[in-house]
Amino acid sequence: MSFASHDSATKQSAGVAITAEEIAESGVLASEEVARYALYLGDDALMLGQRLSHWISRAPELEEDIALGNIALDLVGHARFFLTYAGTAWGKTEDDLAYFRDEEEFRSVRLVEQENGDFGQTIARQLIFSYYQHELYSQLIHSSDETLAAIAAKALKEVAYHQDHAAQWLLRLGIGTEESHRRMQKGLYYMWPYIDELFHDDEVTQALDGVVPAPSSLRANFERRIEQIIAEATLDIPDVPQARGGDRSGKYSEARGHILAEMQVLARQHPGASW
Amino acid sequence: MSFASHDSATKQSAGVAITAEEIAESGVLASEEVARYALYLGDDALMLGQRLSHWISRAPELEEDIALGNIALDLVGHARFFLTYAGTAWGKTEDDLAYFRDEEEFRSVRLVEQENGDFGQTIARQLIFSYYQHELYSQLIHSSDETLAAIAAKALKEVAYHQDHAAQWLLRLGIGTEESHRRMQKGLYYMWPYIDELFHDDEVTQALDGVVPAPSSLRANFERRIEQIIAEATLDIPDVPQARGGDRSGKYSEARGHILAEMQVLARQHPGASW
Repeated sequence: MSFASHDSATKQSAGVAITAEEIAESGVLASEEVARYALYLGDDALMLGQRLSHWISRAPELEEDIALGNIALDLVGHARFFLTYAGTAWGKTEDDLAYFRDEEEFRSVRLVEQENGDFGQTIARQLIFSYYQHELYSQLIHSSDETLAAIAAKALKEVAYHQDHAAQWLLRLGIGTEESHRRMQKGLYYMWPYIDELFHDDEVTQALDGVVPAPSSLRANFERRIEQIIAEATLDIPDVPQARGGDRSGKYSEARGHILAEMQVLARQHPGASW
Repeated sequence: MSFASHDSATKQSAGVAITAEEIAESGVLASEEVARYALYLGDDALMLGQRLSHWISRAPELEEDIALGNIALDLVGHARFFLTYAGTAWGKTEDDLAYFRDEEEFRSVRLVEQENGDFGQTIARQLIFSYYQHELYSQLIHSSDETLAAIAAKALKEVAYHQDHAAQWLLRLGIGTEESHRRMQKGLYYMWPYIDELFHDDEVTQALDGVVPAPSSLRANFERRIEQIIAEATLDIPDVPQARGGDRSGKYSEARGHILAEMQVLARQHPGASW
């Protein structure tokens, strides 16, 4: 399938199932700027998918094992799309980019790298990130870059479910018992300092002005919607200072190295493809 | 939904999607023997699901992360069915049985508790177990116990995919490079001693004579089919002694305690339901 053969990304996503293989074989090459931007989105999804996968068979409920596991797999799937597309600019595969980049070469935001902590902390991270992602992909489906638009359209449907899952748990824990309310509030305080970075405009997004939404332009809607659901859950909007940094460099990230060590060790020991 | 309202488990599975909740609410109570048997099948699926979930974001290929992750989630889903049904005999929930039983109370076979090892070792375990499970569920769909029959019919479709996935990798690695062939053969040697236990008739299966297939009765077909695919992959049938034990007691299992420690710690620290 060639993306060029479709006159609309949304039409395409409605009809055709996109796969990473199809992106790789489409012959479409990402520009350097688009590739750097695709790394941002792909690394965010990959890191969060890796974090969430730890809940499988470790959640307090088997039902939730499966829900979080499915969300983790959705995110790894989105990462495959973005990393595959980014790789077209540099002649690299999704696996080259996932397993053979070093810590300082990743471009994920710190929010997705934060510890799972307890279930309330994980849900707080899910809530913030899925509300952010929903705003982002809702805009990105209109991108003049048809591949980015097609990936966003495909991912948007799944992110809508992730958002609903996080919101339902926020309400259940916030309105639940005194203990569940306390833990959910604690989770929100823990994750809140990492919001600024999500909406940080930088040279990459500025170079793509008109092609992708400026991160800062997504913030107003995000805040209105997330503050509404938090109030509905009888929880408080945390009043905490934002973490310094925010350039996706990982300079200020304590967790990234640990995540990558675990994620990359097997691929580096014996790359399956090259057996 | 009440299972009694369906005249045929296979008809039902074709039509109605079964959920663990529906089993719990069906009002059908498992007999003591059926419950003990359901634990066998549920514990096997739960343990293997837990093992496989470790591959997510750790596989040598992102594509394989997702494939193994989906298989892991299928298995946890099957475990939910069987543990929920088993629990009806004792007034326990699937989560009581998954998170609050001790090591000696689990009834999984040692095959599913074995280390992932490298990819070849994991595929060897997948091959043996999915070929065994496919034989078992193909018979169990005819059980006079409608709930067991319905669960088997639902699971069989997914196990058919697991079997195909394992077979495709067996061929790819067996016929691939000298190194992939060597690793795949090594994986088969590692897992082969745990086959006897899969086909061991005991007092539980004997008490259910006529209700569930005798494990020993499944072996001939299993051997014929697995030996055929192993030969096709240009690999050898391991000629190794079988491990002693084989009563699902975990007495001879070194791995079970480690798996459970990891699986149960969070649920035992702060049961989500009770927040």
